[in-house]
Amino acid sequence: MTRKRLLTGDRPTGKGHLGHYVGSWENRVALQDEYECFFLIADLHTLTTAAEQARQVSENVRELVLDWLAVGIDPERSTIYLQSLVPEVTELFWLFACLVSVPRAQRIPTLKDVMRDLAIEEPSVGLLSYPILQAADVLMVRAEVVPVGKDQESHLELLREIARRFNRLYGEVFPESQALIGRVPTLVGTDGQAKMSKSLNNAIFLSDPPEVVEQKVRGMYTDPKRIRSTDPGTVEGNPVFIYHRAFNENREEVAELEERYRTGRVGDVEVKQRLAAALNRFLDPIRERRARYAAQPGLVDEIILSGTARARAEAQATLRLAREAVGLPYQVS
Amino acid sequence: MTRKRLLTGDRPTGKGHLGHYVGSWENRVALQDEYECFFLIADLHTLTTAAEQARQVSENVRELVLDWLAVGIDPERSTIYLQSLVPEVTELFWLFACLVSVPRAQRIPTLKDVMRDLAIEEPSVGLLSYPILQAADVLMVRAEVVPVGKDQESHLELLREIARRFNRLYGEVFPESQALIGRVPTLVGTDGQAKMSKSLNNAIFLSDPPEVVEQKVRGMYTDPKRIRSTDPGTVEGNPVFIYHRAFNENREEVAELEERYRTGRVGDVEVKQRLAAALNRFLDPIRERRARYAAQPGLVDEIILSGTARARAEAQATLRLAREAVGLPYQVS
Repeated sequence: MTRKRLLTGDRPTGKGHLGHYVGSWENRVALQDEYECFFLIADLHTLTTAAEQARQVSENVRELVLDWLAVGIDPERSTIYLQSLVPEVTELFWLFACLVSVPRAQRIPTLKDVMRDLAIEEPSVGLLSYPILQAADVLMVRAEVVPVGKDQESHLELLREIARRFNRLYGEVFPESQALIGRVPTLVGTDGQAKMSKSLNNAIFLSDPPEVVEQKVRGMYTDPKRIRSTDPGTVEGNPVFIYHRAFNENREEVAELEERYRTGRVGDVEVKQRLAAALNRFLDPIRERRARYAAQPGLVDEIILSGTARARAEAQATLRLAREAVGLPYQVS
Repeated sequence: MTRKRLLTGDRPTGKGHLGHYVGSWENRVALQDEYECFFLIADLHTLTTAAEQARQVSENVRELVLDWLAVGIDPERSTIYLQSLVPEVTELFWLFACLVSVPRAQRIPTLKDVMRDLAIEEPSVGLLSYPILQAADVLMVRAEVVPVGKDQESHLELLREIARRFNRLYGEVFPESQALIGRVPTLVGTDGQAKMSKSLNNAIFLSDPPEVVEQKVRGMYTDPKRIRSTDPGTVEGNPVFIYHRAFNENREEVAELEERYRTGRVGDVEVKQRLAAALNRFLDPIRERRARYAAQPGLVDEIILSGTARARAEAQATLRLAREAVGLPYQVS
């Protein structure tokens, strides 16, 4: 039995942190067994909101791939590729852009969210079009499954509209890819803010060395109403305990600490020391894999370029089918 | 001294007629001496207004190239190429689309004209973006000169904004291409309508055989106030005489006919017979070149594909420069 094909990816925006792991990467690693996975480094998407800062993309691409490899994405089983090295995807984008009206693109709710979050007054044509480019990314490899959060469901709806419209106008070429809607848990930041994020400066990075993890954990936000270690404390919503539950594999230790915290029988210092130790236990194999990949000169480049060659062959095959269906003469060599 | 580089082109929408010749092709043939010319078959642009009719594109591409060759475009001196076979142009388009705001794109006056003319209520994202794709076409070969009519000046302005913005943000890569604003004469239709056009059914095609030309000329609109051949007639604005002046190289014959027409000493039949003869004299060498090219199986394909290989090499070189400037890692192979 052939595995269904799946595509997902990230913009290369910087180092990965525990929030990325909990939110999607942990899940991706597991999906590799069930699906034929394509993991996209979406550098062309980065330009839609940060055309000015593109110079950092290059470094970020390598960091992102090292993070993926470190958490357990396996380049032997899955395809890691760089979007901008597959120009065929932008040609497919163009075919799709002619099938989507401007008002339809403007109705995508995430567009308004991005504009509000980044204080963008006038979207670029690229930003308006990025869900269409996403559809081209997915349909370029004819992926049947796309793991998405609730907020991205509207993109999948647009993708299916495009696929249906194309298939009806020109002939059956594209699948109506389905969302694999999973819980996309967000992880609270070390400062207690709703979401861990590099820009909020409240992140623990997967590449942080042990002493940095210890230092960040020492500074973490806990129950603000608890003054003394003999005061009963609140565990629910307390970032230190959220992290314990998420990353400390010693369940007995977590249960014991929670009980003692609730009844005023443990100090913050001990809870945090044990969290730092647990996080470092969790991060150690990730750090080791990262170091192993980073130590071999050219290996990350090789993984990206050979994955890209594989993805590009798929892209060229799909573009052939699409060109034939549309009725464009000749084929791109 | 190296010749400056020039790019222009057409959408493959059907057979070429006398209006195309007078409006631009005659001029293009002459430009080949002074410039290094790239002639673009803009099939991706066709999809912005006729996604549904794309199936005809393939046949139209061959007709268009045969027309170009027939009027004297020389594939040895100039590069004829098919846009959609150069996917790199759509990647460059994407880099540019991230530099143009949606309101800026919406302000291009030709967008409103196209929507009105074709009764399009909601433009597609492709239609909104087509002046950006044009900028990518021109800048892909770093053309310094673009022959345009007055109505397309706004596209060149947008192109220069894009080139300036890109160069300032990322580094000097693109020329600020200049418009070669020429007279773009429009030719009246055989029915006296303002403009010869296939869709108005008032066109004489370059590929029409002699007897079709004769028949179309017999049916031409002339001076409607003239009842008898002895009535004095009006030459100015009279399509038959407009064509005589444009295509009859026997200037004495034209002068004599005008004089006799004004003074009621010639019938419509004779004026038209002489016009048909003059048009066929004008069209004969065009027909001959067309037949010569059409007779060699595979020759048109070969011209398109070898021109496209030349254009694509330019496109790849330009994309390399652009990627390096933007800071995208690696290069497309």
